[in-house]
Amino acid sequence: MDTHTQVSGMLEKIERVRQARRKKFYLRDEHITLSHGSGSKATHNLIEGIFAPAFSNPLLDQMDDSAVFTLTQTSETATAMRMAFTTDTYVVSPLLFPGGNIGTLAVHGTINDLAMAGAQPLYLSAGFILEEGFSIAELRKIVEAMAQAAQNAGVAIVTGDTKVVQRGKADGLFINTAGIGILRDNTLRGQNRLQAGDKILLNGPIGDHGIAIMLAREALDIESTIESDSAPLHTLVARIMQVAGAGIHCMKDPTRGGVATTLSEMAMASEMAIVLEESAIPVRPEVRGTCEILGLDPLTIANEGKMLVAVAEDKAEQVLAAMREHPLGREAAIIGTVQPEPAAMVFMNTDIGGKRVLDMLVGDPLPRIC
Amino acid sequence: MDTHTQVSGMLEKIERVRQARRKKFYLRDEHITLSHGSGSKATHNLIEGIFAPAFSNPLLDQMDDSAVFTLTQTSETATAMRMAFTTDTYVVSPLLFPGGNIGTLAVHGTINDLAMAGAQPLYLSAGFILEEGFSIAELRKIVEAMAQAAQNAGVAIVTGDTKVVQRGKADGLFINTAGIGILRDNTLRGQNRLQAGDKILLNGPIGDHGIAIMLAREALDIESTIESDSAPLHTLVARIMQVAGAGIHCMKDPTRGGVATTLSEMAMASEMAIVLEESAIPVRPEVRGTCEILGLDPLTIANEGKMLVAVAEDKAEQVLAAMREHPLGREAAIIGTVQPEPAAMVFMNTDIGGKRVLDMLVGDPLPRIC
Repeated sequence: MDTHTQVSGMLEKIERVRQARRKKFYLRDEHITLSHGSGSKATHNLIEGIFAPAFSNPLLDQMDDSAVFTLTQTSETATAMRMAFTTDTYVVSPLLFPGGNIGTLAVHGTINDLAMAGAQPLYLSAGFILEEGFSIAELRKIVEAMAQAAQNAGVAIVTGDTKVVQRGKADGLFINTAGIGILRDNTLRGQNRLQAGDKILLNGPIGDHGIAIMLAREALDIESTIESDSAPLHTLVARIMQVAGAGIHCMKDPTRGGVATTLSEMAMASEMAIVLEESAIPVRPEVRGTCEILGLDPLTIANEGKMLVAVAEDKAEQVLAAMREHPLGREAAIIGTVQPEPAAMVFMNTDIGGKRVLDMLVGDPLPRIC
Repeated sequence: MDTHTQVSGMLEKIERVRQARRKKFYLRDEHITLSHGSGSKATHNLIEGIFAPAFSNPLLDQMDDSAVFTLTQTSETATAMRMAFTTDTYVVSPLLFPGGNIGTLAVHGTINDLAMAGAQPLYLSAGFILEEGFSIAELRKIVEAMAQAAQNAGVAIVTGDTKVVQRGKADGLFINTAGIGILRDNTLRGQNRLQAGDKILLNGPIGDHGIAIMLAREALDIESTIESDSAPLHTLVARIMQVAGAGIHCMKDPTRGGVATTLSEMAMASEMAIVLEESAIPVRPEVRGTCEILGLDPLTIANEGKMLVAVAEDKAEQVLAAMREHPLGREAAIIGTVQPEPAAMVFMNTDIGGKRVLDMLVGDPLPRIC
């Protein structure tokens, strides 16, 4: 198959998946609700109903967390470079929580979106919206932690912007970070590239971030030692790419909407089925207990230091071993398998011997988690 | 002078200017005020007091609107590419105004920051913060205009993010755009590169954006035909770079804080004086009249389709002619000259034969102008 055929085949597939998604997502609402920001079905309805058709282009249409492209410069000698570019806005409440703050989260989150694309994160931008009256001492604390997080991860914040709005027109502080990185190899990866037989790997216990945020809110009076798992995953990614290279078909971090939503996105984009083993999915007892008390499903709770990886079957054990040697993958596990049918579905074989269909998060049990 | 000496010379100069700025700017406030967002002295105090020292690195420390750097990829064959990266958050109120809306402004503003760095803008990211209850019809209108603005300018919005906050925790809609572009040549430009004898060029009448926004606010009952000058300047930049190449020492768009603040930044960063001729500065009669009524100075009012260019004396007339041939430069003018002394000052020879010192905007006469 020559390159032209490959590309047009890929574009056709993107278009087919896009059409299918359009059918699946309807935007019926007249006003924005909190659900539209939860990473749930409502978020997808909004994106597919407004943003995706308006901004449509082959890079955006893939709907991965980063755009990946080749830049070509022809000014003197022609050079080409494969890059990733991503953005995320952070509106987490409260601004400070066990395990981090809005600033460290903004650094880790954007590093992770680049890392999931197989890129080495290099440079971040930072855009701040401040509410009139916000404490400068608190801002300093957050900014210094943010700078430390960037330095620890080996990225530089190279450009920024600050805006202020009147009291009551924001909530203290919102931060946007965008980031660019250079692709570590030339393999095409993405949520539409799962293959039958792939193993789904997860680097550790789920739900810590969402539960830590929820418990940090004053309304709930539950004592807990749970900390956000917020962490930069790029060195873990570099390690597993070294081990398995083109055998890694997709990496995606289960943030808003949790593991269930992220795997649903992968299954839909790839037109594949994913079958999980509940017993294999690591969840801390404290997170599980809190979820039970509050009627939440750990599989829909946000994470900020976790990744789901679809790996070719013959490389899965090697990747698992490499993950477990890394500080952010000590409790890594193979949690599922990719199958050709039924396309675009996620199932879970439950602990009690049943089979459950997993879908995207509906509604928003935990607004402003990131 | 070899490359090493050049680089260390530049770093020394950056450090010297940085130290000088530190002395000039003091952050004494305990809480954020609207002035901190106005692009004024207070904004500089905040940036120099918190952001600059925390995030300090050679790229950020230059404090240009874009970071400019060379990316090197060594995976197969070593390739290098000079790029620009920038971000801006938009909180303009009202969201729709004569001549544009928050979405078109977010596209033009980020294109312009890249263009001012001498880059061809390529890709934008878009991060949305939506307030619960915001009208989906209005969102659609803004997003479609934004998409059209990007298409008209030949850039693609390739990655995005949407967050929602509770009613009363934002003001309808805030948008962040970040952007990347490829440098059109290898000339080093920036606000610290003005040279004695340079001419200062401006591409047209000032103050339209700020006055259009202010008059669009319901509180003021002044009838007007003034529209925002919001426009993408990258094709104008490409044209003048073609004409004058390395003769263009600095390009900067006088947005928040207006021409006076932007020229002050250039004079300070370059340790040069700038002398303006008031009679040469184009201002529409309607803008001048509105400023007089409201006690504002057109030189401190924000623009979104204007640029200030420092050009080597022997290229100034050619650049002026090229500007005037471009739709966005019909009323271009040479408005001033760069002199070695007194360093870091901006003066204006006034229409009535006097001499006035121009300084950065102080306070915020027009909050949330962009």
